[in-house]
Amino acid sequence: MPTILFAAPPRYWGQYELPLRAALAGAGVQDATLTCDAAAEAVDYMIYAPCDGAAADFTPYTRLKAVLGLWAGIETVVGNPTLTVPLTRMVDPGLTEGMIEWVVGHTLRYHLGMDAHIKGQDGTWRNGVVPPLARNRVVAVLGLGVLGAASARALAGLNFRVLGWSRQPKEIEGVVTTSGPKGLQPVLSKAELTVLLLPCTPRTENTLNRKTLAMMPKGGIILNPGRGPLIDDNALLEALDSGQISHATLDTFRIEPLPKEHPFWVHPGVTVTPHIASETRPDSAARVIAENIRRGEAGEPFLHLVDRTAGY
Amino acid sequence: MPTILFAAPPRYWGQYELPLRAALAGAGVQDATLTCDAAAEAVDYMIYAPCDGAAADFTPYTRLKAVLGLWAGIETVVGNPTLTVPLTRMVDPGLTEGMIEWVVGHTLRYHLGMDAHIKGQDGTWRNGVVPPLARNRVVAVLGLGVLGAASARALAGLNFRVLGWSRQPKEIEGVVTTSGPKGLQPVLSKAELTVLLLPCTPRTENTLNRKTLAMMPKGGIILNPGRGPLIDDNALLEALDSGQISHATLDTFRIEPLPKEHPFWVHPGVTVTPHIASETRPDSAARVIAENIRRGEAGEPFLHLVDRTAGY
Repeated sequence: MPTILFAAPPRYWGQYELPLRAALAGAGVQDATLTCDAAAEAVDYMIYAPCDGAAADFTPYTRLKAVLGLWAGIETVVGNPTLTVPLTRMVDPGLTEGMIEWVVGHTLRYHLGMDAHIKGQDGTWRNGVVPPLARNRVVAVLGLGVLGAASARALAGLNFRVLGWSRQPKEIEGVVTTSGPKGLQPVLSKAELTVLLLPCTPRTENTLNRKTLAMMPKGGIILNPGRGPLIDDNALLEALDSGQISHATLDTFRIEPLPKEHPFWVHPGVTVTPHIASETRPDSAARVIAENIRRGEAGEPFLHLVDRTAGY
Repeated sequence: MPTILFAAPPRYWGQYELPLRAALAGAGVQDATLTCDAAAEAVDYMIYAPCDGAAADFTPYTRLKAVLGLWAGIETVVGNPTLTVPLTRMVDPGLTEGMIEWVVGHTLRYHLGMDAHIKGQDGTWRNGVVPPLARNRVVAVLGLGVLGAASARALAGLNFRVLGWSRQPKEIEGVVTTSGPKGLQPVLSKAELTVLLLPCTPRTENTLNRKTLAMMPKGGIILNPGRGPLIDDNALLEALDSGQISHATLDTFRIEPLPKEHPFWVHPGVTVTPHIASETRPDSAARVIAENIRRGEAGEPFLHLVDRTAGY
């Protein structure tokens, strides 16, 4: 009879309550109390998303067995020293599918030069440039976790020549991978378009900075559906102004919503999208949470456990 | 020692001469004369693309063994009564790959609602609408020839629910297909987005007309990378004005380049692209032509022979 606290911004309760109750029943978790308001000392599991009212101090949660992150990113809680129980993050099949769709869609948008036509409906028949086939276009994916690996695979499935880079060596069929600090330059220098899907950790902050942006081919393109701090904003603006980078589509930012006065909004080389690259989907995410509560009650290892030292 | 006449607009000679010579050598066709200027009675094979100077009367070509179409569409020559030798059309792997990329790219553009962001960089954080996953989006492909079937397969590979329609029954894994006049309504009525990849024949002209546009769900979307005459232009403009169709991206037109004064250019519900959905690629197309000449010389059946009665 576990007590499960839904510790997330109140607007999500309406979306998640019914899917969670259904998923708990489906997973065979008996007599659970699912609530968004419980005494700290009564809570067995916390379903966690960052919000103003969320626990900054986990000490009062004396019965707590696990904190189950509702989102893929857990950087707001991973370093919290008062959190001493297992922390899991969300690996939601719906989130992965949505990310693949965003990454493939925007890669093809650049590959096909769509913006020139979407914005250029002026009667000019601009048929001069035939884009190369995807098989002659090199793209890079930085970060080969669940989202990065799935996106790299989908791009390779459409014939793009895909290079992948991650901290630890990874093998992905159809993708040429490198790893570690020395592996970054060979990947960045060959790719016309680079996708950022690294986790957000102190180590990955400013992965794209003045030095690494200069490694990219002149006129390179950036997609950032990962996390805002992966890019040094000022270095990117300089690279856009100099033409080193021709265009960037950014979905994540250091401050969200991106402030109205931020130069990204007005720069002709930037398309801002409002953190929509992918969203956790209540139905599939609720099943992941419920399965982890079932595992906790049965004494089985949790899925998608966060490595607190690595930070993801 | 066949004489091969390159009967295409002069600008293509520069792109095709070297790939054709290389492909003929690669196919083992000995001592061929490849030219863009030969006496009619000396020509064994004609590589044909429509142009002002191209043969309207094939009667003087007394030695002619075959007309080898350089493009996928052969509607300008298929009905010519003076053409009595085999006619082949281009099935170029490069053309197919390019078409897949265009169709998948523009489908994802609509699926993700990209235009609102590409055009809406005004400081507004428009994160209200999360698109459904592709697995919950129904799209239709009309025409299941080489290009249509490949596009349908690629869309299904990205999880879209794909309905396919063709004149003759076809089976494609992962795609629900119907055929014949009665099969059209069930497909059109369920698809939020419809892709036109039918051949251009008297039978397919105006496939999308006032009656069939009304079968689509309110706010439907159209992609036409196929052929201009597949759509009744005035019926489409009416459907766009009424909101029955919310948007169309058209790559092919009855007259090309699309005249500057055509209402498609200024209609907010239309994106014109200048017949770039896919192009025949000289390297791979030259190999297809050379293989057919080798077959002709060896007395083997031609690849991609046109059914003159069906018109494609």
